[in-house]
Amino acid sequence: MLPTAVLERAQRELPDWQGLGMSVMEMSHRSDEFVHVAEQAETRLRQLMQIPENYRVLFLQGGASLQFSAIPLNLLAAGRTADYIDTGIWSQKAIEEAGRFGQVNVAASSREQQYRTIPEQSQWQLTPQAAYLHYTPNETIGGLQFDAVPDITADIPLIADASSCILSAPLPVARFGLIYAGAQKNIGPAGLTIVIVRDDLTGKAQSATPSLLDYAAQAKNGSMINTPPTFAWYLAGLVFEWMQEQGGVEAMQRLNQQKAALLYDYIDQSGFYANPIDRRYRSIMNIPFTLPHAALEKPFLQQAAVVGLLNLAGHRSVGGMRASIYNAMPLEGVQALVAFMQDFAGRHSA
Amino acid sequence: MLPTAVLERAQRELPDWQGLGMSVMEMSHRSDEFVHVAEQAETRLRQLMQIPENYRVLFLQGGASLQFSAIPLNLLAAGRTADYIDTGIWSQKAIEEAGRFGQVNVAASSREQQYRTIPEQSQWQLTPQAAYLHYTPNETIGGLQFDAVPDITADIPLIADASSCILSAPLPVARFGLIYAGAQKNIGPAGLTIVIVRDDLTGKAQSATPSLLDYAAQAKNGSMINTPPTFAWYLAGLVFEWMQEQGGVEAMQRLNQQKAALLYDYIDQSGFYANPIDRRYRSIMNIPFTLPHAALEKPFLQQAAVVGLLNLAGHRSVGGMRASIYNAMPLEGVQALVAFMQDFAGRHSA
Repeated sequence: MLPTAVLERAQRELPDWQGLGMSVMEMSHRSDEFVHVAEQAETRLRQLMQIPENYRVLFLQGGASLQFSAIPLNLLAAGRTADYIDTGIWSQKAIEEAGRFGQVNVAASSREQQYRTIPEQSQWQLTPQAAYLHYTPNETIGGLQFDAVPDITADIPLIADASSCILSAPLPVARFGLIYAGAQKNIGPAGLTIVIVRDDLTGKAQSATPSLLDYAAQAKNGSMINTPPTFAWYLAGLVFEWMQEQGGVEAMQRLNQQKAALLYDYIDQSGFYANPIDRRYRSIMNIPFTLPHAALEKPFLQQAAVVGLLNLAGHRSVGGMRASIYNAMPLEGVQALVAFMQDFAGRHSA
Repeated sequence: MLPTAVLERAQRELPDWQGLGMSVMEMSHRSDEFVHVAEQAETRLRQLMQIPENYRVLFLQGGASLQFSAIPLNLLAAGRTADYIDTGIWSQKAIEEAGRFGQVNVAASSREQQYRTIPEQSQWQLTPQAAYLHYTPNETIGGLQFDAVPDITADIPLIADASSCILSAPLPVARFGLIYAGAQKNIGPAGLTIVIVRDDLTGKAQSATPSLLDYAAQAKNGSMINTPPTFAWYLAGLVFEWMQEQGGVEAMQRLNQQKAALLYDYIDQSGFYANPIDRRYRSIMNIPFTLPHAALEKPFLQQAAVVGLLNLAGHRSVGGMRASIYNAMPLEGVQALVAFMQDFAGRHSA
């Protein structure tokens, strides 16, 4: 979902960007105009996230999934081990892919708890001198979210797949070695990936790393080794500008907490819907819920669509329902969802 | 450059795609609606290029440059050699990257001729049993284009980087093992890459191939291992539809030849501008030209911009001017360019 104000501006500017006589999509990525658009976007993201000077911000292609390969290719040298925390489907994908490029240790997993909780950090089996520790702060499909940044020794780089929580709440960037995120949740359209990487972690890639996946090469070339996804980069900049107008990440967090509380409170007191996640680790971005009977799911989705409530089906791997209430979702959207859920429950309760 | 009709339609549909109440950018890539958009685009491309049934069409990210890595990772097994023809900057980049993943033989090069011609095929030093032969049918920056598809034995897969000539003229797909193209020249916006690969060439990737670069995995998942660049894919479909309305690839070729002839004829008879390329191999897409003195380049670009003629600077690596007259450029655009060039020459001739 994108903010309505951003979509409207993108629509206005689509055929003719600021009187230049061409679309952003038609601008050369080497033109002064596009370079300015690109630099502005980075500046705004640095302001929003308070990114320290010794971190590079890369605007790449391939989604978070391509970073599942790029991270071990850049940071997992032969003979070293990378630690991963397994908290759900996205963690699993990252772990599986990393195993193609080096030694991986699953330091903790909540698989036996059906990924309904986060393993206590005191129980993690961390590798001394690990190449890095990777975790997924928010599991999009499971609706499971860490309530704090893992507390590990400063000499081991902490890596976060922040695809579905970036910019939803402040993040202490300096505690991380690398943060990455596909853009299509809180930033912009699909096809853009943000990588925020500490300087000293670049330049150590394995020899069989494709040049476009090499952080040092991308940093040196301003993310423009080849043509970047210019339109997505431009849209990301518009979203960053919109977020600054809304009051920045802290304002987003307040609103996100308010939206999530509204929905969780209703689910918990409904006696009809249920959310299975350990309350301490409930996501403020993705809220899965079930109905009393699976047979009610199809009518629920159909009737929701009639009143304009879309994208509520859970992921095909888990079923059920899931409300994704990213930054661009206004409070009114969640209020409308709760009103519909109340109405539906009233009509279908025994 | 994108066709004006496509930009106008994209603008209309941007906030609300076909009454669905959301933008294409907001649609889940797994939704029936987007899957239909995606399949339609593939169907139209198959029709336009007459792609045989035993070829997969992939819609990927990363640009042609990421394919420079993916091709050897998928097709260059240990102990084998891949042949490359070197005809300019893009060939060189493909060769350099392939060398990171296996044994490469530069079977022919026109480097000593400053890439102003194509080496005669009778002189190529081909490897018996090569893993594949790679060439660049049109060198975007040099403005150098093959006048025929290389004639090699059927057991060696022929691979073409068709980024700047795909859909500009008919291509006998069945003579190729693999054709790839970044979308940002003749297809759509940056951020989408088309790969057309013969079935039997998939499933042989090196073990250290990132999953997203594995053709077999992408083919199996309909190019949706992860979220694809949905908006670019949708726009590509609109461009394919527009091309069909224009009469298909043959109609594009006729118009492209007419546009190129108009510009080359004027350059050759001007006595002011010059194009350095062997006439047999002049590109119909990218037409580089020089002015009598380098000091005239800046005023040329400035005055051209005033009358709305943009993107005429040559690539920073070669200098001079370059007119890229892709499919979306109408004949009137080339006529306007020639009129400006005549006027400029009249005012600056000795």
